[in-house]
Amino acid sequence: MYRKEIRVLDCTIRDGGLINKWQFSHDMVRRCFLALHLAGIDYMELGYRASASMFSPKEYGPWRFTTDEDVRRIVEDTQTAMKLGVMVDIGRVEPDDLAPVAESPLKFIRVATYIKDIDKAIWLANHCREKGYETFINIMAISTVGVFELDEALKQVEAETQVTAVNIVDSNGALFSESVHHLVHMFHTHLKTKAIGMHAHNNQQLGFANTIEAIRKGANYLDATIAGIGRGAGNCPMELLVGFLRNPKYSLEPILQVIEDVFVKLREEIEWGYLIPYMITGILNEHPRTAIEVRNDPVNCDKYAAFYRRLTTPEVCPPKSVPGGA
Amino acid sequence: MYRKEIRVLDCTIRDGGLINKWQFSHDMVRRCFLALHLAGIDYMELGYRASASMFSPKEYGPWRFTTDEDVRRIVEDTQTAMKLGVMVDIGRVEPDDLAPVAESPLKFIRVATYIKDIDKAIWLANHCREKGYETFINIMAISTVGVFELDEALKQVEAETQVTAVNIVDSNGALFSESVHHLVHMFHTHLKTKAIGMHAHNNQQLGFANTIEAIRKGANYLDATIAGIGRGAGNCPMELLVGFLRNPKYSLEPILQVIEDVFVKLREEIEWGYLIPYMITGILNEHPRTAIEVRNDPVNCDKYAAFYRRLTTPEVCPPKSVPGGA
Repeated sequence: MYRKEIRVLDCTIRDGGLINKWQFSHDMVRRCFLALHLAGIDYMELGYRASASMFSPKEYGPWRFTTDEDVRRIVEDTQTAMKLGVMVDIGRVEPDDLAPVAESPLKFIRVATYIKDIDKAIWLANHCREKGYETFINIMAISTVGVFELDEALKQVEAETQVTAVNIVDSNGALFSESVHHLVHMFHTHLKTKAIGMHAHNNQQLGFANTIEAIRKGANYLDATIAGIGRGAGNCPMELLVGFLRNPKYSLEPILQVIEDVFVKLREEIEWGYLIPYMITGILNEHPRTAIEVRNDPVNCDKYAAFYRRLTTPEVCPPKSVPGGA
Repeated sequence: MYRKEIRVLDCTIRDGGLINKWQFSHDMVRRCFLALHLAGIDYMELGYRASASMFSPKEYGPWRFTTDEDVRRIVEDTQTAMKLGVMVDIGRVEPDDLAPVAESPLKFIRVATYIKDIDKAIWLANHCREKGYETFINIMAISTVGVFELDEALKQVEAETQVTAVNIVDSNGALFSESVHHLVHMFHTHLKTKAIGMHAHNNQQLGFANTIEAIRKGANYLDATIAGIGRGAGNCPMELLVGFLRNPKYSLEPILQVIEDVFVKLREEIEWGYLIPYMITGILNEHPRTAIEVRNDPVNCDKYAAFYRRLTTPEVCPPKSVPGGA
């Protein structure tokens, strides 16, 4: 599947850090950086940029903040064509948390937003662009967004920003190939001067498949993570995506090497990937938080049938906020 | 995805047994049978039928042979609409190994064949049909079959058999959605009086995705296994397929219950599912046997980069049959 416009964006550390509050060792992040550099990956998103005033550095590891200094320590003196960047959440970053691009080792910023906050996301993306960064907007929980709202948001992003691409983010892992086709078509209809990106989750073992389907319909910015690491069921695995693209600019072997060196052991320490509770929230088109909770509960982590009954039989579980509610 | 012609065929015991020589306990097989019965699954393939003269019952468990008596012990007095059957391999079963259907608890026989043996498969399917069984032909390793050979084979099966469906079997786990679309189209072109089936493998996390793509193009006979159990990377997971079909005749909960009761523990005892060596044979469109070997080698099971180099750099490994060969 060779197409010269295709760009691969790794978000191993950023999305993987959602599992363990970004408590990755320097050595681990450096090895990932080198593997991705050697593999010829186009973009690496190293973490979130967030204000230290909003999150405790005692609780969260460095890639919750991803300071320019942290990034320089990872790069050392490696010369790489791979662009480095961070994700920002609306309301969790201050305008002054970003230096002008010329003073930073970062090249791009991705703004993650729910559809309701699209105006704020546009403001933040434009602010980052003014500082010289390449920008992206990621529209999260896309499987829950109404067509009218999405139409309006895409028109606005097209008219009001200079983002490189707008990304379809299947936070719930609920999309099937036909919904991916439909979404990419909608994005194309409105985004005449922007590219389209895909960030898939693996709740239904469709993270890679839905990424392929997005490519087939014209998406050119593709998110993936090494060994598919990521919150809950994880993401589209980088090794599968690189294997599929068969583009001579990418190499599979450095990815396989870092999986062998780092991720086999890491998977024994923290959990991600296809597991039945994540599948259940995926098929129900829900955020994985209830599945994450049940996986963290040693008594109930494998009580799949009860978990399914709980989510599909609401009357069994009255809302706590309604006193005496049935 | 409701379509009244769709039929789901479980091959948990038959394909799962390839991992452990069919050494499943009676209790495990009975629980699977009951779960599938309660879930409303249409067909259950309990194992292979094979001649006891060709395989040692000391080495192989009962579902390598799947005698009518074994099947009766599983069913007990459960009244079920689910059809029970077995798979037969050419050359590994004698004509007399099958009783007439009226004397057997089995209702269907699937003949597995490589394309080169299609004449023998047709003979065997017709032999089974004469004994009264519903029949199927599974064309294995479909990703390695030339178009001309496949055209010829399908024409013959259409003209010379009364099989219910012909199944696309992606033994190597190498197909992508576009190849699935192309194959289903080819099958439709030649099989005017037969249905089309899909048996996918999960080497590239596409087992479920490719099954969906086959459905979209008109395949109506769908193979799946509970928790995706099966040789190597395993199969399309039953829980995902039932979740996708949203057909009121199927129930997800009994499948989730048996995964919880049986498969969580089983997965700690025997290995299946997406693992990097299987991914590598998948992207190289090779049979998984080298990957199975490496996973059974405790020293090299996680040496992914070396395994990849070995398969992609043949000169490193001269064929043993060439003395002094380089």
